[in-house]
Amino acid sequence: MRVSHLFTRTSKTAPADEVAKNAQLLIRAGFIHKEMAGVYTYLPLGKRVLEKVTQIIREEMDAIGGNEISLTALQHKDVWEKSGRWNDEVMDVWFKTKLANGTEIGLAPTHEEPLTQLMKNYISSYKDLPVYPYQFQIKFRNEVRSKSGLMRGREFWMKDLYSFSRTQEEHDAFYETITQAYHRVYERLGLGDITYKTFASGGSFSKYSHEFQTLSPVGEDTIYVHEGKKLAINEEVYNEEVLADLGITRGELVEQKAVEVGNIFTLGTRFSDVLDLNYTDEDGTSKKVIMGSYGIGPSRVMGLIAERFADEKGLVWPENVAPYKVYLVRIGGDEAIAHADKLYDELTAKGIEVLYDDRDERPGTKFADAELMGIPYRVTVSDRLLADEKYEFTPRASGETQILTHAQLLDTLG
Amino acid sequence: MRVSHLFTRTSKTAPADEVAKNAQLLIRAGFIHKEMAGVYTYLPLGKRVLEKVTQIIREEMDAIGGNEISLTALQHKDVWEKSGRWNDEVMDVWFKTKLANGTEIGLAPTHEEPLTQLMKNYISSYKDLPVYPYQFQIKFRNEVRSKSGLMRGREFWMKDLYSFSRTQEEHDAFYETITQAYHRVYERLGLGDITYKTFASGGSFSKYSHEFQTLSPVGEDTIYVHEGKKLAINEEVYNEEVLADLGITRGELVEQKAVEVGNIFTLGTRFSDVLDLNYTDEDGTSKKVIMGSYGIGPSRVMGLIAERFADEKGLVWPENVAPYKVYLVRIGGDEAIAHADKLYDELTAKGIEVLYDDRDERPGTKFADAELMGIPYRVTVSDRLLADEKYEFTPRASGETQILTHAQLLDTLG
Repeated sequence: MRVSHLFTRTSKTAPADEVAKNAQLLIRAGFIHKEMAGVYTYLPLGKRVLEKVTQIIREEMDAIGGNEISLTALQHKDVWEKSGRWNDEVMDVWFKTKLANGTEIGLAPTHEEPLTQLMKNYISSYKDLPVYPYQFQIKFRNEVRSKSGLMRGREFWMKDLYSFSRTQEEHDAFYETITQAYHRVYERLGLGDITYKTFASGGSFSKYSHEFQTLSPVGEDTIYVHEGKKLAINEEVYNEEVLADLGITRGELVEQKAVEVGNIFTLGTRFSDVLDLNYTDEDGTSKKVIMGSYGIGPSRVMGLIAERFADEKGLVWPENVAPYKVYLVRIGGDEAIAHADKLYDELTAKGIEVLYDDRDERPGTKFADAELMGIPYRVTVSDRLLADEKYEFTPRASGETQILTHAQLLDTLG
Repeated sequence: MRVSHLFTRTSKTAPADEVAKNAQLLIRAGFIHKEMAGVYTYLPLGKRVLEKVTQIIREEMDAIGGNEISLTALQHKDVWEKSGRWNDEVMDVWFKTKLANGTEIGLAPTHEEPLTQLMKNYISSYKDLPVYPYQFQIKFRNEVRSKSGLMRGREFWMKDLYSFSRTQEEHDAFYETITQAYHRVYERLGLGDITYKTFASGGSFSKYSHEFQTLSPVGEDTIYVHEGKKLAINEEVYNEEVLADLGITRGELVEQKAVEVGNIFTLGTRFSDVLDLNYTDEDGTSKKVIMGSYGIGPSRVMGLIAERFADEKGLVWPENVAPYKVYLVRIGGDEAIAHADKLYDELTAKGIEVLYDDRDERPGTKFADAELMGIPYRVTVSDRLLADEKYEFTPRASGETQILTHAQLLDTLG
């Protein structure tokens, strides 16, 4: 992509009412636009990041047998009344509206009920289980406060997978399988080292649920990290019982601020009870399906990554989620232009994603934009180095420039 | 994908309240699920079709300089009040709801206003133009009646591109460019031969708008087709004036029923006037930006294709949008199973998308499912033909079975 074809531009300032650092930076760099608190438009660069995060999650869900679907935002109230969650006091984030004929409907803040109802069409025998449908879908949550940028949205992207299993053992095995898949997701997102499987409060059907918490100074959650065991405990269950269960002591733990980037939850028969989702087992008896739910918010993850890795110059994207891998800058006259055009075509033909700053701007402006946008590698073609066919190569994270030959450059980016 | 891993199943019947043939077939084949009138969940097979339609449109929009973004469903009323479209009598398909603090907001039925407002951040000079942002987004429209399955949704997918141009000439040139891109889209969707650029009523800024109409016996629109010129006239503007403009006579036209699968519209300064979207031209003067809007509904297109090509046995997908290219059936014992497993791996490794019916079902059941789902090519591995390493190969559209060798099969599918 040529910067001249990108309609966004960078800005030195963010909207005055935007207090979250992730949103401030993403708005200044032209990745998102604020429609209202917790509601953001994704501009071309932001859309690319969101797609990359989404695709990493999709690949890992497909790899463990996930079936991608897409449920609806508009919801009839019947199944939610059966579960008790239509009531605004029980589920306090509903947006509700009306059909033209006056029927009250809601915008789904989550999808356990409609999916459980839907699966009644497809689950009747033990042969139909287990199954793992999932989706990437826009969720609507009418949060009273929404001041954390992409990290707490009123309209936001969620990956939610639901497991439908025959037995507790089958459920437990999948729970472990998806735990490992989540670790692979965070590893690929560049968050592996700082993300911990965290014990949190369970429900009627399991003692604990599990969150994936990424260490961050601006995190809303407090967790207690056991570095040796690569796990953590959410403060809500930080007590003698959980320490005993895990065989660890307070002295081994370090208190940290963190952001919840995923959660996995044993639902048991909470929804199959109220919506009558049963299957006939091999022995002919009717049994309740055992369920679990597993969420990751791609837009929240994007906000977290933006905020977590940023420095005083702007965003710093891990390579796997960066909108482009290379920011190509040209400095100089016709010769530099022709040379940079050629390099752009060459890298693009090799499948390397390049954002090519083909504008007639001062070098300082181009460098500042490259830094604010956080593209992992800046490559500079300049009159000065052209004679030797050499290039400046500057990783965004280190900021340390090397001078590379053409062969070295291709080798480094390859 | 193995059919045993697909959680959906086919059904001999559709819900009694579903009157649209496209939705009846798609529900029976397990592609979609009806949540309420005009609101459908996409199940794994349906999600794949929707993605393929989407990807074809995306590639053609990118090829003409489109910039993909994603606007928001939730909308503050301010910009819509400025354009006069917040009023439910002017725009009669609003779903409206409220933020927790009582502020009234709406669910976007279209996006001219918020995008025009957004572009004020990025357009100030003639150097910033032209630009062509577009999105795939869920639109919400509170239709009083919604009985056409995927063809008229209350919650549905739309691709909407908007052009921002300096002059009428620049606008007109892009209008022609995107007209050609639309023709390529319908060609790739398998609708090229039966889709006509159709003259329809314009607005304040152009005499005509243009629809793309696909001939279909169940179409809600009546158009008059000129086969020689590959164009049509919508009955709403079928008069002497348009005939004179096009230099054709009534005698050359054939009346047809058709479904609108896309539309392109000159907005002129309708929105840049009310929202003050201006640019400074090269001569220093301030001018209004000229706009256009260009829509295609991927979910409607999917419904149309489902309905248009279906026969008495079920769906018949054009290859480019089929969820899988091959439906692999195995008939017989261990040897047939081992052989089919191997062929499945071989075809999949070649990048051919195969839905492998690995169930222990009667051949008749498998064949009927293959036909109902409309997968373009059925390949049958059976005990009978194994000895010669031969296969039954049956295109869904013709239903004519050939016996092919392994080499011939790979050649045909390659």
